[in-house]
Amino acid sequence: MKIKITGTGSYIPSYVEKNAAFHNHTFLNSDGSAINASNETIVRKFKAITGIDERRYAKDHLNNSDLASFAAERAIEKAGISREELDYIIVAHNYGDVRFGSHQSDTVPSIASRVKHLLRIKNPRCVAYDILFGCPGWVEGVIQAQAYIKAGMAKNCLVIGAETLSRVIDPYDRDSMIYSDGAGAAVLQNIEDTTDTSAGILAHDSVTYSLDEAHFIFFGETNNQEINDNRRYIKMYGRKIYEFAITNVPLAMKSCLDKSGVDIKDLKKVLIHQANEKMDEAIVKRFYNLYGLEMPENVMPMSIGKLGNSSVATVPTLYDLILNGELENQSIQKGDIIMFASVGAGMNINAIVYQN
Amino acid sequence: MKIKITGTGSYIPSYVEKNAAFHNHTFLNSDGSAINASNETIVRKFKAITGIDERRYAKDHLNNSDLASFAAERAIEKAGISREELDYIIVAHNYGDVRFGSHQSDTVPSIASRVKHLLRIKNPRCVAYDILFGCPGWVEGVIQAQAYIKAGMAKNCLVIGAETLSRVIDPYDRDSMIYSDGAGAAVLQNIEDTTDTSAGILAHDSVTYSLDEAHFIFFGETNNQEINDNRRYIKMYGRKIYEFAITNVPLAMKSCLDKSGVDIKDLKKVLIHQANEKMDEAIVKRFYNLYGLEMPENVMPMSIGKLGNSSVATVPTLYDLILNGELENQSIQKGDIIMFASVGAGMNINAIVYQN
Repeated sequence: MKIKITGTGSYIPSYVEKNAAFHNHTFLNSDGSAINASNETIVRKFKAITGIDERRYAKDHLNNSDLASFAAERAIEKAGISREELDYIIVAHNYGDVRFGSHQSDTVPSIASRVKHLLRIKNPRCVAYDILFGCPGWVEGVIQAQAYIKAGMAKNCLVIGAETLSRVIDPYDRDSMIYSDGAGAAVLQNIEDTTDTSAGILAHDSVTYSLDEAHFIFFGETNNQEINDNRRYIKMYGRKIYEFAITNVPLAMKSCLDKSGVDIKDLKKVLIHQANEKMDEAIVKRFYNLYGLEMPENVMPMSIGKLGNSSVATVPTLYDLILNGELENQSIQKGDIIMFASVGAGMNINAIVYQN
Repeated sequence: MKIKITGTGSYIPSYVEKNAAFHNHTFLNSDGSAINASNETIVRKFKAITGIDERRYAKDHLNNSDLASFAAERAIEKAGISREELDYIIVAHNYGDVRFGSHQSDTVPSIASRVKHLLRIKNPRCVAYDILFGCPGWVEGVIQAQAYIKAGMAKNCLVIGAETLSRVIDPYDRDSMIYSDGAGAAVLQNIEDTTDTSAGILAHDSVTYSLDEAHFIFFGETNNQEINDNRRYIKMYGRKIYEFAITNVPLAMKSCLDKSGVDIKDLKKVLIHQANEKMDEAIVKRFYNLYGLEMPENVMPMSIGKLGNSSVATVPTLYDLILNGELENQSIQKGDIIMFASVGAGMNINAIVYQN
């Protein structure tokens, strides 16, 4: 049995929000105090740390489930299977459908049911559900699909990561510049073809740190304490997350690679959640350092500069862009061994070693 | 390999909201028009159809994740394992944590991460995630736990269903009388004990009908069109759901029973989602009719009269009450074969045949 990704797709919203758009914002510290710097300085420092020049926002009339269905259509087409053959549709997200202008997350029915509806799939035996697992939700959905295939419960699974973070951001919070909208999807199949020499999923690893870390990313109030706003927004303790991530993500990546039996020198690419460029670099450098190695050049493809952090969507979108030759100086060939890795709210970390 | 439920727990909020509490409500039709009946008549008809006398609401200071953690504590204690041995915490819900007085669903971090935090579990290898699958979410969580055990990814899984529907109901909608708050939980384990003759999970079945049915249960506006309220509430097309459920749920139950190889005459109890008494009776009667049989007396334990419909929590709560001898004239003995069955938003249906 080989469990392989046979098709990928992504949806990148067409609307570009550039860093300059934030020059007119009133940014405040979390305690409501003024930030002792000009907006231009705040934005320049932000860019230096995160690597983000611009991000994408969904058009007002579109919802998260629409984005998810667009990415799904492409993945199914690429896989070359009939959508009626799907046994599972698994959608990873964190906030459901948040209509433009609304404060409420709409999660009933599940986003997966909406996607199945939008894809016009008739087969009731295609089970559609959502997983909430922070930013690592898409990678975890792939791990769950693998379990159903191994347990003999499925042959073909569609796993989608979709998020519209532009709808849950506090305009008074600098961190809001990080977040973006998007969707990525993949079809996983049980491949019995013995002439195919590449192995598909080789190993996985998942961990949840919640004793002290559960609320590092949370739903909190605006930084502006002078307006009457009970609404909650996506919030994070950036410094705590940074320390947590550079310590624990490399260890989970190593655990996964060691389980796979692959020599780190044979690892061609690390596709890591596009959280923050400096943090991602520190994680991957430490991962190589655990093996006494320097990080090889070009091993870590990045899309964050142009696409920002779209949570669950970053890893499948990055993979899809590379496979389509749409990321400069990056390619993945058949037989290449790669790693998917992610970290986010929960705090959750996961990784998959995969032979393309 | 036997996959068995080794401990159950439930949390039933202490606050009782009786039907009489609704006598002062202004109920309106979904188009905003007045209902041509007194409140006493509306409530009497409601009781005749749903069987509901009273329902439970969580205390204001408690959130859904608190309810979930209370049920989980009891299930873990009953199972007699260390909480640090858990490989998965799976929480089924539909609206996350909705703080009292808030309109917003809080789903970051996941409810499972919050539960793991509240349980003070240290082991990072215990993976905590949420599943959104409508009311059948807890049954589906059990099916997912089974997959991880079969795939060799887990030995011990905690599956919780928790919901605070009292926080998402429209006071102008008669259907609001249906909804209740609560939590139920179970520990599933891979049992290698060869002296244990009962088999645990024998078969399961899951289906998602979303082509025409996806939005039968949805997030919609208040029935009162004269107030300025953009908030969305839980809403349903009751008649459509009734027709859908009495047609499709018996078929899914039969598919599950037939897969298990169990003779319907050996089925001791059907624990069905407490949605609506008349609908539940019609479903189970039709299920028996598919085998040319009348529904046996006392085969369908009901808790809806006192507990209302708490979505994902009804099935595990019902099971826990029976095992604890807290449901009059109902008991389940070791070796008894029972069925769990559910239907809800998505529209999803599932069933499990289980030897106790």
